[in-house]
Amino acid sequence: MAELRATPYLQVDLDVLEANVAAMAKHAAAHGLAVRPHAKTHKTLEVARLQLAAGATGLTVATVAEAEVYAAAGVDDLFVAYPLWVDPAKGARLRALAEQAALTLGVDSVESARAMAAQLPGARALVEVDSGQHRSGVPAGEAGALAEAAAHSGLDVLGVFTFPGHSYAPGAQQSVAAQEATALREAAASLADHGVEPAVVSGGSTPSAADTDGSVLTEIRPGVYVFNDAQQWELGVVPPESVALTAVGTVVSHAGGHVLLDTGSKVLGADRAPYSSGHGRLLDHPDARITLLAEHHAVVAWPHDDLPERGTPMRVVPNHVCTAVNLVDELVVVRGGAVVDTWRVAARGANT
Amino acid sequence: MAELRATPYLQVDLDVLEANVAAMAKHAAAHGLAVRPHAKTHKTLEVARLQLAAGATGLTVATVAEAEVYAAAGVDDLFVAYPLWVDPAKGARLRALAEQAALTLGVDSVESARAMAAQLPGARALVEVDSGQHRSGVPAGEAGALAEAAAHSGLDVLGVFTFPGHSYAPGAQQSVAAQEATALREAAASLADHGVEPAVVSGGSTPSAADTDGSVLTEIRPGVYVFNDAQQWELGVVPPESVALTAVGTVVSHAGGHVLLDTGSKVLGADRAPYSSGHGRLLDHPDARITLLAEHHAVVAWPHDDLPERGTPMRVVPNHVCTAVNLVDELVVVRGGAVVDTWRVAARGANT
Repeated sequence: MAELRATPYLQVDLDVLEANVAAMAKHAAAHGLAVRPHAKTHKTLEVARLQLAAGATGLTVATVAEAEVYAAAGVDDLFVAYPLWVDPAKGARLRALAEQAALTLGVDSVESARAMAAQLPGARALVEVDSGQHRSGVPAGEAGALAEAAAHSGLDVLGVFTFPGHSYAPGAQQSVAAQEATALREAAASLADHGVEPAVVSGGSTPSAADTDGSVLTEIRPGVYVFNDAQQWELGVVPPESVALTAVGTVVSHAGGHVLLDTGSKVLGADRAPYSSGHGRLLDHPDARITLLAEHHAVVAWPHDDLPERGTPMRVVPNHVCTAVNLVDELVVVRGGAVVDTWRVAARGANT
Repeated sequence: MAELRATPYLQVDLDVLEANVAAMAKHAAAHGLAVRPHAKTHKTLEVARLQLAAGATGLTVATVAEAEVYAAAGVDDLFVAYPLWVDPAKGARLRALAEQAALTLGVDSVESARAMAAQLPGARALVEVDSGQHRSGVPAGEAGALAEAAAHSGLDVLGVFTFPGHSYAPGAQQSVAAQEATALREAAASLADHGVEPAVVSGGSTPSAADTDGSVLTEIRPGVYVFNDAQQWELGVVPPESVALTAVGTVVSHAGGHVLLDTGSKVLGADRAPYSSGHGRLLDHPDARITLLAEHHAVVAWPHDDLPERGTPMRVVPNHVCTAVNLVDELVVVRGGAVVDTWRVAARGANT
C-alpha cells in the first residue's frame, strides 16, 4: 500500500516520535521542569495528546487561531507565546477561548498590556523577555516595570518567558542556554522588585533544551523535538535516528547527472539557515546534498556514480519541520515501515 | 469591514491583477506568441478564468494534482511542465485526465518516455530542454534523439519546452532570454533532424518574458506576472505599482526599536534569493527592510524614528508569491480598497 501512495507526502515514524516525546518528558522531569510543548510544530491533535499523556502541563501556541483549534479539541491549558495586539475582534475570540481553557497570553509593552486588559480584564499574562534573539520582548531589567504596569492595567501577571532562538547556530547551544538563564533570572528578580511574584519562569527551545538551567526556569516550551529536522541534525542536537518526519519523494530524472526528486519547496518549505548544508537532507543517504530547490524539484548532488533508478522512493528531511508540516493537510503515520494511520494537520494555516 | 479582518491574510488588488493579465496578453500578441500561463502561481480558478478570457491557449501546471483541479473546473487544455515519472497509479490518473482535457506532458529521458507511453499510449509530449538553469531537461543537441525515441515508444511528440529559471538574477533577463532562444532553436532543429516536427517551441518566465524572441518561440508560460512579488520588484522586472498581491499584517510590537509585524514565514514563505534585500518588502514603505523572519514574526528595520503605532495595518510583498499563495486557503480580493470577493486557493497543496 505505502509504495503506491502518490509522492511527495509527509510521513511520521511513530516509534521515533514516541521516543522523542518520552525523552523530553524524562529530561524535564529529571531537572524539575514542566513541559509545555510548542504545538505550532505539529499542528496535530494526535501529537498533542501524546505530549499531554507524557505529562505536558498544557500546550504553547503562536496564534489565537491555533489556540482555538486545540481548545475545541479539549486541550484545557494554553499559552499564546506571542506579543499579541488585542483589538476588539481578537478580544472577543480570546474571551470565548477563556471559557474553554485556562489561557495565558504574552505581553511585551505597556500599550499591548492595556489593550489586552481592556478586552480581557484579569487575563493571565507572562512578560516576554529578549534573551538575545532580538525578535520580541523587553530587556530583562525592564521586565519588572512592565509587569507592574500590566498588573496595574488589570492583567494577572504570572511571570516571565523568553524564546532563545539564537540557539539555532552551530556550537551556540550551551552559551545560549546560559544567556537564557541569566536573562530569566534577572527578569524574575525585576518582577519581585516591583511586587510581582514570578511564579512562572518559562523558556526553552529544542536546541537549548538539553542545557536548560533547572535552577532558574520552571518550564520549557520546545516544539521541534517531536519530529526533529535537518537543522537539529546539522546543529548536532540529535542524530538522524531521532528524525521522526520525512518527506517521501520519488526520483523523477537524472538530468545533468544529478538525482532529481519531486520533493520541492511546496512540501519541504524554503527555510535555509546559514549553517545548512543544503535544502534538506536525505535520511538514508547522508552524503548526498540538495543543491537546488524549486517548488517541485529538489536537485541532489549524488555522492556516487551509480544513481538510484527513476521511480525510486527517497526520504527527505526538511530543514525546518514546522514550516513543512504547515504545507500539508495530513501526515501519513508509519510504524515498522507499515502505514498505521493518517493524521489531519488540524491547525494548518491557523495564522491569525 | 476590511479593517476588522484578522491578520495576517493575503489580499489581491483586482485592478492591478487585471492590468497585469492584459499587459502580458498584449505583449504576447505583439510578438506572435501564445500564452499558456503557469497556474501554479495562483492555484485559483478565478485567476485562471481571467487568463483564459484574455486569450490564454490553456494552462500550464506543475503536477498532475493541479491538472486535476483545473480540469474538474472545465479547463480543457493543460500542459504538465514537469519531467513526470509515470507509474501505474499516476498513469490511471492521467488517463482519466485525458478524457477531460487536451493533455500534454513533459519528458526528459527515454526511460520516462517509455514509462509514460506504457501507461498512456499516444500521449502528447514536449521534450524538456535545459537552457542553462541546470534543473531538469536535456541539452539542446540531444533533444532530437530523445524526441525520436519517445515517438518510437509511442508518444505524440509535439515539440520542445524549457524554463529559463536562471533569469532570476540581477541584470540577467536579456542574456537569459537570448540563451533560451538559442537553446530552443537548436533543440527544434535537432527534432527536425530526427524527423519530428517541432510545432510547439515553448519557454518563458516572468523575468525573461519582455525579452522573449518571438522568431524562435511559439509560446510563453509565465506564472508570477499575474501577482508579481518582491523578487520581480527587486530584479527591476516591474515597478511596485504592478504588485497585485500582498500579505496584510499588523504592527504588534516595537521591541528593540523595530517594527514587529505578524506576517511571518507561515504566510510570506521563507524564500530568500541571494539578491533579495530582506524577507519581503513593505509596499507602502519601500525604505523599510525585513531583517528577521520567523514563523509569525517579521522584524522590520524602520527607516525613520517615528514608528507606526501598534495595531497599524501594513501591506507586505512576499519575496516569492507562488509559495505564499500555497500557504493560505483563500485570497481576499479588493478593488479600490474595498473587499469585493474572496477566492478559494483551489489547488493549494496539490503537490502530487
